[in-house]
Amino acid sequence: MQPLSFPEKGALIHEGRSLLTDVSLPAAVIDEGALAHNLAWMQRFADHHGAKLAPHGKTTMTPALFRRQLEAGAWGITLATATQCVAAFAHGVSRLLMANQLVGRPNMALIADIIERGAQFYCVVDGIANVQALGAFFAERGLTLPILIELGTDGGRCGVRNERELDALVAAIAGQPALALAGVEGYEGVIGDADPVAAVRAYGERLVATVMALRESGALAVEAPIVTASGSKWFDLIAEAFDRADLRNGYTPVLRPGCYVVHDHRLYRRAMAEVRARHPELQDELRPALSVFAHVQSLPEPGLAIVALGKRDISCDPDLPLALAHYRDGHATAPVSEWQVTHIMDQHVFVTLPAHADIAVGDVIAFGASHPCLTFDKWRQLLRVDDRLNVLDTMPTLF
Amino acid sequence: MQPLSFPEKGALIHEGRSLLTDVSLPAAVIDEGALAHNLAWMQRFADHHGAKLAPHGKTTMTPALFRRQLEAGAWGITLATATQCVAAFAHGVSRLLMANQLVGRPNMALIADIIERGAQFYCVVDGIANVQALGAFFAERGLTLPILIELGTDGGRCGVRNERELDALVAAIAGQPALALAGVEGYEGVIGDADPVAAVRAYGERLVATVMALRESGALAVEAPIVTASGSKWFDLIAEAFDRADLRNGYTPVLRPGCYVVHDHRLYRRAMAEVRARHPELQDELRPALSVFAHVQSLPEPGLAIVALGKRDISCDPDLPLALAHYRDGHATAPVSEWQVTHIMDQHVFVTLPAHADIAVGDVIAFGASHPCLTFDKWRQLLRVDDRLNVLDTMPTLF
Repeated sequence: MQPLSFPEKGALIHEGRSLLTDVSLPAAVIDEGALAHNLAWMQRFADHHGAKLAPHGKTTMTPALFRRQLEAGAWGITLATATQCVAAFAHGVSRLLMANQLVGRPNMALIADIIERGAQFYCVVDGIANVQALGAFFAERGLTLPILIELGTDGGRCGVRNERELDALVAAIAGQPALALAGVEGYEGVIGDADPVAAVRAYGERLVATVMALRESGALAVEAPIVTASGSKWFDLIAEAFDRADLRNGYTPVLRPGCYVVHDHRLYRRAMAEVRARHPELQDELRPALSVFAHVQSLPEPGLAIVALGKRDISCDPDLPLALAHYRDGHATAPVSEWQVTHIMDQHVFVTLPAHADIAVGDVIAFGASHPCLTFDKWRQLLRVDDRLNVLDTMPTLF
Repeated sequence: MQPLSFPEKGALIHEGRSLLTDVSLPAAVIDEGALAHNLAWMQRFADHHGAKLAPHGKTTMTPALFRRQLEAGAWGITLATATQCVAAFAHGVSRLLMANQLVGRPNMALIADIIERGAQFYCVVDGIANVQALGAFFAERGLTLPILIELGTDGGRCGVRNERELDALVAAIAGQPALALAGVEGYEGVIGDADPVAAVRAYGERLVATVMALRESGALAVEAPIVTASGSKWFDLIAEAFDRADLRNGYTPVLRPGCYVVHDHRLYRRAMAEVRARHPELQDELRPALSVFAHVQSLPEPGLAIVALGKRDISCDPDLPLALAHYRDGHATAPVSEWQVTHIMDQHVFVTLPAHADIAVGDVIAFGASHPCLTFDKWRQLLRVDDRLNVLDTMPTLF
């Protein structure tokens, strides 16, 4: 069966470019003003702390956004899997940090292929068996694989838990000529602790101390070793740990937030408030740039609207979507602060609203959500819009 | 930026066809034996009750599976949105039942385009404003739109709630020459009731009585009016309601389960047990056909495995994934009944297992899940495999 040409969901259908009249809804939409602000904001934050930025690309898997991040000054793009790395490399990203273990011969083969084609690639290791498998595979291919040791925490996710494991891993790496130890990596987002701020600070210091000790011991194979961590919640604490150690000269400190690029309306907005509480000097903050627009589909009972979007279209994890705005005939109407999403199904959202609310089938509601990663991955394309909701362009994704 | 050719996640990478050695994991996999069984099982069930089958295609959005369903005897394919209908039509599905209201001019234009190209299309209506909008749009295009009235229940989702609303809707439809009332539609999966079996039975009877009364009144514009309902949980009760009324002659009773085609390991397996309890005469049952295979990525602590798949790859709603089997070097090993998924993140799953378990980084674990809809939509392609886990082909999806 040959795939024919047909519009993706959320596509421009009419010849105009208005999101509200010319697009097949539901559609996922990125506001250019907030996007440009966020790109500059986070790059400035990293610069100010003497750190490089390798935004986590798994959030968006959108080459047009990778390009914007690199143009804004990013050092590289972080990714989670081998196929994500290949997709990013195929779309122009040449420096790739895979913040995960590379496992499985088919995945190793994918990475070997892009290294042969010029990719500057790093992945992480936390176990001797994986080190041996990578060493054997890349030796057989006649390639050198740059790796970072992942430092983990008890009860956390991946990563060596203690000095003993670290030493054994360093020794195992030294026995593999095809592997080049290039630094240390961590992810502070999985640290569970009664005092998370103190725990993340201590973890940042451990990362710094470890890369310094490894360099001192002669275990590192590169000039400016990498030390990297940070998701989108505690990036300020990691940046401070890097800044305090003044890694600007002689090291490559790399921050890896991903969600900042479009931020969000719930989870990361709360996290931003915490960042600002820790940093009263910050002049401004990240802005939510991603929303999903959908039609009111049915008004079956007073005070209940069924809207034509669902789990297939927007994140509902960890929070239900948030109604942001209401439009009729292409124009914004009254505020929707009393409109509440109470339930979501695969293709439907339930919104409760005052029984007297002025709403009609065919009206458009814009929704925000928690966790942009889980909204992006519902879409093969997103629309970039200006502040009048005119569509600037269509951005394909690579999930 | 031009998209280059690169492998999708879950793609065959090596020249062999073994899922366990030649595929970039994680990969979503459909077992051909269980698939063929399920296709035949549900078609036989529908035939036995004198009903047509229009499987809900939103579950899989996989044209190769639509074709298999039609080849097995399905009357048509049900879909949820205008873009889903266009995608299915572009891939050879000519009879489309959109079990939703058609809302928004761009979406109406998409449907008008496929009707002009020969699609036999039905959608549902439950409100006068929507009837007027559809009537005006399709009149302007010089087309006739076949519609079904959706019957809803108090506290449910869409659909007219009572006779008064039904009568008003019928009158509104009669005033729109571009609309052809072809029957009634419902979805019993949203009925909340202390005695759901009785409530679903009563709802099935209401659907039947309504289509009969509408026919009697002369409101219907077709020879063999459609009456349709059923998701994947209560399909037996709806089939019985249709069967009892003996709609074989003069009506077109249509069942619309979607998940049956691959079934699942949790939610619908439990539902199947309930179906069998209601029908001791059933000789066999649906079989889970969909799983996701992934590599053990890290073994950071005794009794904890981190596996390289996550919310981006498998449904975790309403249940966490279930470890099904463990493979090493291409071969199955011991049972994994004590291995438990305890946590899932975007790209990682946490599995707890006995501290003495024989497990290594690079091993493969197969997982089942609840709710196939929310696993399918994580993939741009799935692999169809035989009972030796050799890849038969790659099936693109159209989400």
